Amino acid sequence: MRNIDVGEVKNASLSQLKMLAETLREEIFRTVSVCGGHLSSNLGAVELTIALHRVFDFPRDKVVFDVGHQCYTHKLLSGRARLFHTLRKEGGLSGFPKREESEYDCYGTGHAGTAISAALGIAKARDLHKETCIVIAVVGDGSFQNGLIYEALNSLSALSTRILIILNDNGMSIAPTQGGAHEVLEEIKAQKGDLELFARYGIRYLGPVNGNDLDELIPALQEAKEELRSGCVLLHAVTRKGLGYPFSESAPMETHGISPHPAAREYSAALGEELCAIAERDSRVVAVTAAMTDSLGLRTFFKKFPDRAFDVGICEEHATVLAAGLAAGGMRPYYAVYSTFLQRSFDEIIHDICLQKLPVTFCVDRAGVTGEDGETHQGVFDLSYLSMIPNLAIVAPKNIAEFRKILQKSVSWETPLAIRYPRTGEEGACGEVDFGKFEVLQGTMSDIIILAAGERCIRIANSVYARAVRAGICFRLVNVRFIKPLDIGFLASMREKYVVTLEDNVLAGGFGESVARALAGSGKQVYSFGYPDAFIPHGASSDLMKKYGLSEEEIYARIEELYARG
Amino acid sequence: MRNIDVGEVKNASLSQLKMLAETLREEIFRTVSVCGGHLSSNLGAVELTIALHRVFDFPRDKVVFDVGHQCYTHKLLSGRARLFHTLRKEGGLSGFPKREESEYDCYGTGHAGTAISAALGIAKARDLHKETCIVIAVVGDGSFQNGLIYEALNSLSALSTRILIILNDNGMSIAPTQGGAHEVLEEIKAQKGDLELFARYGIRYLGPVNGNDLDELIPALQEAKEELRSGCVLLHAVTRKGLGYPFSESAPMETHGISPHPAAREYSAALGEELCAIAERDSRVVAVTAAMTDSLGLRTFFKKFPDRAFDVGICEEHATVLAAGLAAGGMRPYYAVYSTFLQRSFDEIIHDICLQKLPVTFCVDRAGVTGEDGETHQGVFDLSYLSMIPNLAIVAPKNIAEFRKILQKSVSWETPLAIRYPRTGEEGACGEVDFGKFEVLQGTMSDIIILAAGERCIRIANSVYARAVRAGICFRLVNVRFIKPLDIGFLASMREKYVVTLEDNVLAGGFGESVARALAGSGKQVYSFGYPDAFIPHGASSDLMKKYGLSEEEIYARIEELYARG
Repeated sequence: MRNIDVGEVKNASLSQLKMLAETLREEIFRTVSVCGGHLSSNLGAVELTIALHRVFDFPRDKVVFDVGHQCYTHKLLSGRARLFHTLRKEGGLSGFPKREESEYDCYGTGHAGTAISAALGIAKARDLHKETCIVIAVVGDGSFQNGLIYEALNSLSALSTRILIILNDNGMSIAPTQGGAHEVLEEIKAQKGDLELFARYGIRYLGPVNGNDLDELIPALQEAKEELRSGCVLLHAVTRKGLGYPFSESAPMETHGISPHPAAREYSAALGEELCAIAERDSRVVAVTAAMTDSLGLRTFFKKFPDRAFDVGICEEHATVLAAGLAAGGMRPYYAVYSTFLQRSFDEIIHDICLQKLPVTFCVDRAGVTGEDGETHQGVFDLSYLSMIPNLAIVAPKNIAEFRKILQKSVSWETPLAIRYPRTGEEGACGEVDFGKFEVLQGTMSDIIILAAGERCIRIANSVYARAVRAGICFRLVNVRFIKPLDIGFLASMREKYVVTLEDNVLAGGFGESVARALAGSGKQVYSFGYPDAFIPHGASSDLMKKYGLSEEEIYARIEELYARG
Repeated sequence: MRNIDVGEVKNASLSQLKMLAETLREEIFRTVSVCGGHLSSNLGAVELTIALHRVFDFPRDKVVFDVGHQCYTHKLLSGRARLFHTLRKEGGLSGFPKREESEYDCYGTGHAGTAISAALGIAKARDLHKETCIVIAVVGDGSFQNGLIYEALNSLSALSTRILIILNDNGMSIAPTQGGAHEVLEEIKAQKGDLELFARYGIRYLGPVNGNDLDELIPALQEAKEELRSGCVLLHAVTRKGLGYPFSESAPMETHGISPHPAAREYSAALGEELCAIAERDSRVVAVTAAMTDSLGLRTFFKKFPDRAFDVGICEEHATVLAAGLAAGGMRPYYAVYSTFLQRSFDEIIHDICLQKLPVTFCVDRAGVTGEDGETHQGVFDLSYLSMIPNLAIVAPKNIAEFRKILQKSVSWETPLAIRYPRTGEEGACGEVDFGKFEVLQGTMSDIIILAAGERCIRIANSVYARAVRAGICFRLVNVRFIKPLDIGFLASMREKYVVTLEDNVLAGGFGESVARALAGSGKQVYSFGYPDAFIPHGASSDLMKKYGLSEEEIYARIEELYARG
């Protein structure tokens, strides 16, 4: 669409602004239909963002969007409308705020709960610089479950600075919001403004206002701006997720994130099916998630076993320690989580699960390059941050059938375990799975061996293999399956001189390094393919994988070269 | 001391219990004077723990101690009094609760904020097993700053189970407790029981009671036990940190942790001095800590620059994001933190600091083996979990002088930076420090080169070097200094065949693996010394380093062997 002049929002009449809201809503809907992205959260925040641009002076004033999945209107209003059709495409606009993309994006986000802490830091820097701009944090009610928000609120009074917090309350995170904090917000709404809770933190509470009604919003923001002179303010704006798009309004969970790709077989569906079957047989099996029941495939499990299913909200750390407690009490918890969000639990995986050798299984979904969501959502670190943790076993199945088999066997393995898998794959077939054992998929012994970790790498390796066979080059192709413990027996038995490792993960600290260390002094040469030491931006997964290090061409070229070397 | 029979606490008269409290207090004081350990927190919790053992039936009932630094009385009352003199010694009792040590320790702790989540998990497992034991979480007021506690409280009502939370409120964490949550607790104490805050979370509030008075405590716990039949209960016990030991009462911060070692030169003192000097010259410099101002050397900085010093409480994640916000606002934040606690910020280091390339410097104290606190406090993972993060530079100074130089230069490096250092070291001297450059310390080129990371490794390498020189073996010894970015130019210029790496860190994902990866295909052989894939228990640091992988003997033997190989 045409670029929107910054002055346009300032000078428009109210009715013109309302028309603008409709235009933007259509543009968002149209673009997300093509490019994918976050639909319902963005549709719900259109008026709120217009009102912010009307009342405040960006980029002089600063706004931090928590999670950032509601920033499309902000992008459209800050000189990026003409580029909006490139949303989430390689080289195009990011689906999240990005400092390097625009001076209007003062702080990048992607994970939940950071906005108040970041806004406090920016505000404190402003104070020290003796500047006077206004700093705003826009936070969804879902993030009010996250501990980081409370750490920030708790330190707010001690920091003695001034920020405006906009609580964008649509009663949902990805799933409906639950728990004590949610009830508090519901209570506040019912009483039309209980000032007390926030007063304890030294914050003046304003609202609630209808966050989809510009007539209410603009004066409320003007009042908030006034009140900011004397201290921190929270404006409680009640919005409707998905507003303006009937299906999105009635099914906000289904339209939280829209994928532009045709549906393929999802690992999450298999997780749900197998976990139900296992839970049927073993009463110790329980499931834990952090506000993502559906996208992790657990809807049926939650329905069938409500007493054994725990959705704790956007609280990855609590989910991990709760699972540890459940395991300490004799249960067999399965905690399903996206790779990028599991990072939040790094300390708890070490301190609570692995140190105590508690049999918790992490089902690490969206592992590897995830594509259009970009840098904050790539799952390319887990093999590294998990491999370094003692007592943890790490598995990457070769296909969905093997994933099922591993889930079935995991109940009896009595060890902390992480199973990492991409979003989609093929059902395939699999034989027996023995703990800690590699599997030779094809080939005969020569000078070269490929050790491939996980379905995506095996798929690439298979293509390389087929091509090599046609060229008369022969080697063994191995399904690594257990990234940890490594199959030391197999490694010791290998006669090959050249070992090629493939992993859908950064090379630093990853599978290839483990193999190289295990083979140090053996005289074998290890060549590792994986991602470099850089953040991988948004784009199509397959393109990114190729571009950033898992290119069939390059792997084949290396095989050819090693073959020629002999 | 003699073992205390479990029945003793059950059957004693109140006056006998009071005498027991004095006996235990003396035993704790005597033992900590010899073995080191947490003094004031344990002295403050003597009566509370006796009362718990009087009213509840352990190990059938379960108690989770948050942080665990107040568990000595519990150990003394649960069959471990006779072993108490072995506290924190290798092979002896741990200073923290440990599942493998006793069935009375149902859940291990060490880091703050986990107890309520873990207790909820254990309670939920109990419910599912249709058992009826009581589950208790003992949590200090300092932990009520930590976000994990709020995540647990928030999910408590949804979990619909019953636990008893004992709020052990001494108004301090390691430093005096600050912030909104603290003010709420103070308010509650003043009003003698404001039920509302906790009622919102579905918890019945009891108290406050004097947590050092058995006459008040025992009936209060009995009441809590009754109330537990109908739901979750929080008993607010106000205790006095360090009670019974006058110096500890008047100086609870100084006696929070007692070290059995004679004072040596501390890196933290140098941090404080340099940071003050830098801040004097550069108004952008600010300091951030998470409740550990003194032990990190920042007391003077906080006094001299109160506007530029931020102690956020036990909130490592918030501290990191606040630092990111400050940097986004143009400041140069220095966040000082122990290696083991920095783990909590893993996601934020990636998502907020490094992805945005914000110039935040992490001053990572207590890196490497830390000794008597044991598994939960060893700083042996940071090189691994930091090395895998793009855009982050990582430095390990060879001595305190070099640490000072690096701090001075860091202001102009404009990059996310982590400086990791052990608690103590030698002042020494240092020349110029260039970004990303190794330094040859001594020796001439031969077949062997040692790359040593950080003061402790360099000290060992120096001993190995001296011994080798006496035996006529010659090699180069390099101060790695920059673990990241690696000095690729130097690595490429090395003519040596054998490369020996030393790091005070686990080998998995550490410095040695980075070097091996950088040298892959070069034909050089890399031999790495560091820690194995295991949790390192408590003991004397120097013994542990030797035992777990940094033994001068073994390194020398390897050098001899490589020399003989030629």
